Amino acid sequence: MDRLSLNQITTKAWSLPEAVAGCAEAGVRWIGLWRDKVAETGVEETTRLLKEYDVGVSSLCRGGFFTGITPEGSPVDGVAQTREAIDEAATLGADVLVLVVGGVHGDLATSRQRVADAVGELAPYAGERGVRLGLEPLHPMQCAERSVLSTVDQALAIALEHPAEQVGVIVDEFHVWWDPRIEESIAAATGRIAGFHVCDQKVPLTDTLLGRALPGDGPIDHRHLKACVEAAGYTGPIEVEVFDADLWRRPGGEVLAETVKAYRDHVS
Amino acid sequence: MDRLSLNQITTKAWSLPEAVAGCAEAGVRWIGLWRDKVAETGVEETTRLLKEYDVGVSSLCRGGFFTGITPEGSPVDGVAQTREAIDEAATLGADVLVLVVGGVHGDLATSRQRVADAVGELAPYAGERGVRLGLEPLHPMQCAERSVLSTVDQALAIALEHPAEQVGVIVDEFHVWWDPRIEESIAAATGRIAGFHVCDQKVPLTDTLLGRALPGDGPIDHRHLKACVEAAGYTGPIEVEVFDADLWRRPGGEVLAETVKAYRDHVS
Repeated sequence: MDRLSLNQITTKAWSLPEAVAGCAEAGVRWIGLWRDKVAETGVEETTRLLKEYDVGVSSLCRGGFFTGITPEGSPVDGVAQTREAIDEAATLGADVLVLVVGGVHGDLATSRQRVADAVGELAPYAGERGVRLGLEPLHPMQCAERSVLSTVDQALAIALEHPAEQVGVIVDEFHVWWDPRIEESIAAATGRIAGFHVCDQKVPLTDTLLGRALPGDGPIDHRHLKACVEAAGYTGPIEVEVFDADLWRRPGGEVLAETVKAYRDHVS
Repeated sequence: MDRLSLNQITTKAWSLPEAVAGCAEAGVRWIGLWRDKVAETGVEETTRLLKEYDVGVSSLCRGGFFTGITPEGSPVDGVAQTREAIDEAATLGADVLVLVVGGVHGDLATSRQRVADAVGELAPYAGERGVRLGLEPLHPMQCAERSVLSTVDQALAIALEHPAEQVGVIVDEFHVWWDPRIEESIAAATGRIAGFHVCDQKVPLTDTLLGRALPGDGPIDHRHLKACVEAAGYTGPIEVEVFDADLWRRPGGEVLAETVKAYRDHVS
């Protein structure tokens, strides 16, 4: 239980104050915050609440979109927005800023190069602010719109160009469980793992974004992947991060109770 | 145009006789057949029609499901069914039988081993019948239900355990375009490529099975991937294979005309 972190998206119905208080009440010591929820409450008030309830920030979601386009197809300056997100992470005391790097804009090779260039531009600034950038490869079905980083290998190749305290990789089970190289990739990422996110995949997979479930309700072997990241030296918080429209319609307290149970039964 | 093959699923509204006659009329010299359509017409009558219209079979779809479960979750003896499919391919004069190997049944490692074992059991029989098994990696979003083979590297590792004339790999753009290792993987598959399937991906991707489009309507760089498979020695037919509910509702002749245009404008 000491390592369980509630990624705030899992209890989307809850405001940030409700989520922080809910974690404290349930004995959950960590939370993964989302910037839109932080904005509703304000960065200062969020910082105060975290201190009051003694809940740590496992990560802030998210920076990125370096290819210059949002998932909805609008132009975006991902580098400028990520600089702001780094400042926010520093103020909140979040060690890690999760990056969703952006989808294809122009051709795939150019898009990937823009991501590498943006990380190169931002890594020293993140270092100055004491924030680690967490490159999160997303599932290949999200390559066109959300992330031209699709595998841990690929994220690691970019991370290794920078100091370990500035850039790491996030291992999110939903995105990488299928990868036939996942065991070797995680081992190669020793010292570079900046976060471990768990959830399951619905079968059949009916939605590319929301087709997720609490651990134990799908094909993912959580204890196997947890053993892999631990063997690679990761001992930090484990975020349960579930995008699921059904969960989102339910009261946050109920969802958190099920999250704790799923974590105990299938992850820890 | 000499290399264009109509994969029959693209003109799903057409019966097999309509599709074969349609290809001949449009100057398309190849067709990729599906077993359910062949069954409607009968293997003998299909063979007669192919000869009458002088249309070659680029591949027969499909054998596989070696993990013992259908995408819908029913038990299946994939090895026995694939043996029948090998016989059918031999009778039809199809050089290649496409294999969709099956999704997760039990754990992922065991499921993958069952696939490797089944290929080992069937490869010699395929060789006797003059049919090459084409291992097709499917998109990772189909790993749970349809295919525990997700990358060209992974399919190639199994193929290399058998003689090249018995087992090869199918490169289907829809399934592998996102792969950051695709160029190296295709190069490593020199002499092992048993088919090249083209289509595009819809953006946003709204459906894991039907989210496909004719070449030119998505993010895939067809000429780049075609150059890769050609550099790896593949000079055979190029199948346009599109699963798209909108296309399927339209008359086959219209769809074939657009397929020919898309191939000319974006692939050849």
